[in-house]
Amino acid sequence: MRYKLTIAYDGTNYQGFQSQNNGLGIQQVLEETLSQIAKESIQVVASGRTDKGVHALGQVCHFDTQNPMTDSAWLRALNTYLPNDIAVLDIVLVDESFHARFSAVKKCYVYVLAKDYNIFRRNYEAYIKYPLNVDWMQQAIQKLEGTHDFKGFGVFVEHKPTVRTMFQATLEETDTHYIFTFIADGFLKYMVRSMVGTITDIGRGKRPLSIMDDILEHQDRSKVGKTASPEGLYLKQVWY
Amino acid sequence: MRYKLTIAYDGTNYQGFQSQNNGLGIQQVLEETLSQIAKESIQVVASGRTDKGVHALGQVCHFDTQNPMTDSAWLRALNTYLPNDIAVLDIVLVDESFHARFSAVKKCYVYVLAKDYNIFRRNYEAYIKYPLNVDWMQQAIQKLEGTHDFKGFGVFVEHKPTVRTMFQATLEETDTHYIFTFIADGFLKYMVRSMVGTITDIGRGKRPLSIMDDILEHQDRSKVGKTASPEGLYLKQVWY
Repeated sequence: MRYKLTIAYDGTNYQGFQSQNNGLGIQQVLEETLSQIAKESIQVVASGRTDKGVHALGQVCHFDTQNPMTDSAWLRALNTYLPNDIAVLDIVLVDESFHARFSAVKKCYVYVLAKDYNIFRRNYEAYIKYPLNVDWMQQAIQKLEGTHDFKGFGVFVEHKPTVRTMFQATLEETDTHYIFTFIADGFLKYMVRSMVGTITDIGRGKRPLSIMDDILEHQDRSKVGKTASPEGLYLKQVWY
Repeated sequence: MRYKLTIAYDGTNYQGFQSQNNGLGIQQVLEETLSQIAKESIQVVASGRTDKGVHALGQVCHFDTQNPMTDSAWLRALNTYLPNDIAVLDIVLVDESFHARFSAVKKCYVYVLAKDYNIFRRNYEAYIKYPLNVDWMQQAIQKLEGTHDFKGFGVFVEHKPTVRTMFQATLEETDTHYIFTFIADGFLKYMVRSMVGTITDIGRGKRPLSIMDDILEHQDRSKVGKTASPEGLYLKQVWY
C-alpha cells in the first residue's frame, strides 16, 4: 500500500529535509516515526529536498507499508508521535504509480522578506535594512516567467534538467513585507534564494536590471546576487 | 552613572530572566555583554523576573557604570553584541534615584491564546483546542479589576505584598485568537498564567463562574485552574 503524505514543518532546528553532517533531517524523523507506528522499516520519498532552515507549508512525500490502518488512524498516530515542529496535514492512500518526486508537475515556493527585524519572527522571515525600489524589482522578477535555462541561478546536479518553465514569478509589497511567489515545473538547488538575492540587489541599486538577461540568456553566474538566507523560504505547495 | 534599559526578548531558549539550574538566563547574557562593552563588571536590576519561556516586549532594567558613552553609542554596541533573540529598544541616562524594580508603578502583561495550533507560532502563543464561551470569560475577567488579595492566584513570596490593584483586566476575541490584557501595580509569581488558566476553565464550562469569588475573597487555591503555558505570555510594558 502506498500513501501520499502532505506535511508542514518548521525547518529551524533541522539540517534540511535530509540528514547531513550527523545533524537531524526531517526525513529521518518521519521515517523513524512511521516505522515505529507501522512496526516495520519505512522509507520516505519527498517531492524534493529543502535546505537547512527552510520551512514547508505543504511538502509532499510517499511511503509504502503493509500496515492496514485507515487514513484517519494514520493521521492521528503521526500527529501524536511526531515532534511539535512537524505536522501532518493530510494522508491518503494512492495508487502505486504515484511517486512524490517523479509525479510532481508544479511547485510553489514563497519567500518572506520583512522591512524590519522582529526578534519573534527571526526564524520565519528574512529582513532587509535597505530601502528597495519595487518598480525595478517588478521589472526584474517578470523576466523570470516563461521557459529559460536557470543554470545561472541554481546549482547544477547531474541528470537534472536546468531548463524549466516558470509559470508565475511575482512580488507583492505590503506595509511591512515583500512577498515573492514562484511557481515552476521544477527548481534547481538554491535557485529561489539566488533569484531573491539577485532581485533585492537590483532593488537596492547595487546591480543593474540588465543582469537578469545576462543570467537567463548567458547563464552568467558571476552576475548573481548573494543567496538569500533560508529562514524566509517556504515550500508552499506541490501539484500532481 | 545610571542607565535605564528597555529591552525585548524571545524567552524560548532561556531559563527565564534569571539563570536557573545551570541554564542560561537573560540577565546573565545582558550582564556579560554590558561588562564586555564597558570593560568593568556590571550588574543588572530588572523590573521583575520573567519565567522560563516567557517573552518581553518592553522589560525595563537599570545598571550603573563608569563608562562615559553616549546613549546612542550604548544602543549600537549592545545590539551589535547581544544575541539575536534579545533586542535593546531604548537606553537613557537616568537619575541615581531611579530603580527598575522599586520605582515601577504599573505593569502590563499580555497573554496570547490561539484557537488553532500553528507550528510556526508554537513558541510565541499558547493554543486551546476546546471551544470557549466568551461571555462567561468576560464576566470572570471583569471580577479581577479593582483591589484584591491575589494570593489565591499567585505564589507567596516573603516581603512581597499580595494585595494588588488591577487597573485593567480585559479579553479580546479575534477570528483566530483570544488576547488577555492585564495592567496592575504589581503581579505575584505565576499570577497571570494562573488567572488565564482559571478563566479558560470557566470558558470551557469545566469550572463555574462563582470560583472567581472563592479565589478573590477567600484565597481558595484549590479552585484555581492549571497554570497556562509560558509561551503565550509577554511582559508588554512597565510604567514609572
